[in-house]
Amino acid sequence: MFEVTVSDHMMIAHSLRGEVFGPAQALHGATYVVEAAFSRPDLDSDGIVIDIGRAGEALGAVLADLTYRNLDEVESLSGLNTTTEVLCREIADRLAARLHDGSLGAHAGDLARIRVTLRENPNAWAAYERAP
Amino acid sequence: MFEVTVSDHMMIAHSLRGEVFGPAQALHGATYVVEAAFSRPDLDSDGIVIDIGRAGEALGAVLADLTYRNLDEVESLSGLNTTTEVLCREIADRLAARLHDGSLGAHAGDLARIRVTLRENPNAWAAYERAP
Amino acid sequence: MFEVTVSDHMMIAHSLRGEVFGPAQALHGATYVVEAAFSRPDLDSDGIVIDIGRAGEALGAVLADLTYRNLDEVESLSGLNTTTEVLCREIADRLAARLHDGSLGAHAGDLARIRVTLRENPNAWAAYERAP
Amino acid sequence: MFEVTVSDHMMIAHSLRGEVFGPAQALHGATYVVEAAFSRPDLDSDGIVIDIGRAGEALGAVLADLTYRNLDEVESLSGLNTTTEVLCREIADRLAARLHDGSLGAHAGDLARIRVTLRENPNAWAAYERAP
Amino acid sequence: MFEVTVSDHMMIAHSLRGEVFGPAQALHGATYVVEAAFSRPDLDSDGIVIDIGRAGEALGAVLADLTYRNLDEVESLSGLNTTTEVLCREIADRLAARLHDGSLGAHAGDLARIRVTLRENPNAWAAYERAP
Amino acid sequence: MFEVTVSDHMMIAHSLRGEVFGPAQALHGATYVVEAAFSRPDLDSDGIVIDIGRAGEALGAVLADLTYRNLDEVESLSGLNTTTEVLCREIADRLAARLHDGSLGAHAGDLARIRVTLRENPNAWAAYERAP
Repeated sequence: MFEVTVSDHMMIAHSLRGEVFGPAQALHGATYVVEAAFSRPDLDSDGIVIDIGRAGEALGAVLADLTYRNLDEVESLSGLNTTTEVLCREIADRLAARLHDGSLGAHAGDLARIRVTLRENPNAWAAYERAP
Repeated sequence: MFEVTVSDHMMIAHSLRGEVFGPAQALHGATYVVEAAFSRPDLDSDGIVIDIGRAGEALGAVLADLTYRNLDEVESLSGLNTTTEVLCREIADRLAARLHDGSLGAHAGDLARIRVTLRENPNAWAAYERAP
Repeated sequence: MFEVTVSDHMMIAHSLRGEVFGPAQALHGATYVVEAAFSRPDLDSDGIVIDIGRAGEALGAVLADLTYRNLDEVESLSGLNTTTEVLCREIADRLAARLHDGSLGAHAGDLARIRVTLRENPNAWAAYERAP
Repeated sequence: MFEVTVSDHMMIAHSLRGEVFGPAQALHGATYVVEAAFSRPDLDSDGIVIDIGRAGEALGAVLADLTYRNLDEVESLSGLNTTTEVLCREIADRLAARLHDGSLGAHAGDLARIRVTLRENPNAWAAYERAP
Repeated sequence: MFEVTVSDHMMIAHSLRGEVFGPAQALHGATYVVEAAFSRPDLDSDGIVIDIGRAGEALGAVLADLTYRNLDEVESLSGLNTTTEVLCREIADRLAARLHDGSLGAHAGDLARIRVTLRENPNAWAAYERAP
Repeated sequence: MFEVTVSDHMMIAHSLRGEVFGPAQALHGATYVVEAAFSRPDLDSDGIVIDIGRAGEALGAVLADLTYRNLDEVESLSGLNTTTEVLCREIADRLAARLHDGSLGAHAGDLARIRVTLRENPNAWAAYERAP
């Protein structure tokens, strides 16, 4: 199995709903370092999993919709409790949509898995993986 | 699948038994950067895998029993050859016990896997994973 | 010259005032990894620059007043444009005050310099240094 | 499952064949930080997955054949498009050969998996895993 | 004193002239992680050392002239032995030129120092600092 | 001013004397990531500060006398309280001696400064600088 990962970041404000979050129920923020990994059982005829340039651009485009914003007011996230885990899933789903519309230049059917990791501080991070 | 990881560290002395360890048979030491990952197929009603605050406290409590000590003299490790691999398993087992006694605030049955990674220097690390 | 550095982090929301900040004029957030360095020409009788445990606690206490908050609404910062540079200075000033009130267990007069670095994302950071 | 990872690096020049590579079709170079991970369901009688010293030496020996070279002119790579993914596979295959000839001091049959990761810059890396 | 740093990278091939370089006399390559730091005694009226966005763009523009190339054939470097130290100076000089032509949006006269660091592998890096 | 830095690590046991050290008065250990920086106002005729290969070997040789040992029993350190700061100075002094005996292949008189940094865990490090 082969895997290619690209990394970028976003800087957002948000608040979390639920007593379990303690002080993070207040409006605060985070720099999320975001890693998107694409895996595939065999390489294509160019010897790659996916065009790493286009993968980076796709990740950048997904993050551009979220960065420098207060996620509590982002319409496409309304109704979501934007925990690190939920944001991992959201970003993975948006990348999967780009795979399916062809903008990553690879056939979604060739890939085995997408995994998105968000690092919120040096001591905590989360990940989500799904089929493409 | 979702995964949440928390990180902490411990600073210990120890020696290893066996010719394979060469100079590490002598008493020496290590800063172990310790990562504990918890995975789960679905999020709970708060949108999380596990309370990241309690996960960090549980890891801190497990490490507090070991840090600033000579592991050769820690009674609960007696009989163990405290290689990085063995310490990974020991810490994972202690975290699993805390899951089972309810102190992590999650039902052990909801989790799919615990994985513990110990980084001993910039060029070497080990990991162990088990069912919770 | 000797220098000791301790590191911690805070997660905040804020907005910046001024056209130069472009999209960062909107409410957004950051995880700031914060490093506080203390330097001294000679070591004390224990062979240290400063008690690293107390230095870490002092940094933690300073950050506890800021983390998990919207800095736009923190009274002690009112009137400040909370750029990374300004936050470096603010944290350095608060650490210097703790030096002067004796809570770091060192005489301010023994130290030559305090330097505070805030890392806002993998590609950008700022620092400020001052006499204690 | 247990896993041990060792890390090293190599500094090479190469060019890539295929329009998908854009400017990387020209002769350029990379520092590859290389991680080799070995996994095993149970520990051996010394409490380890593999002798970490010999694993590091084996990785170093494999990289010594490639570092400080122009990969376009390395005979043993002729015919390969030396993408990061292809280099991951090549290095994993060479490590597997060393496992089989006994130079890692472990029986290949005891290991479950070899995974090789190459980090080419802070924002991109690839991995390949195979049975030993 | 305040300092702001931005970071980026370039991937190049080159060879070095001189017996002291041993195997690095052959054509090989490197990923250089490049950090450019700008320092200033006081903040401007926006509370910053320099517009961090424009600083990052300036660094990106300087590196765009070098990345994905064989430095042995870059005309503007002809006659230079492109050691890590020499490349630090070259990049610092090019950033200083951009300061002087106003494209960084700051008056060169306000800055106290430019420092450029190039990290060539996890175990080696170089830096150069100059007046702007 | 130019600066070149090489990095390596050592893994040691030790105990510290003095109430200020709290639990670190007991025998424990550390992985110290060690950085040695050499600075020089001008480059030599090869375009370098110092032969980075020989600098790395010199640092490795200095650390080989300390790693995998209990520093409380290392004769050449007897009488020293081996705090991180004291170890920085000790390693800097040993590197300076190697400069003076010619084994770094540079004239000590050409260098302006040696700085040694020891990172003891992700949240704490110390440094010492001296004239060569």
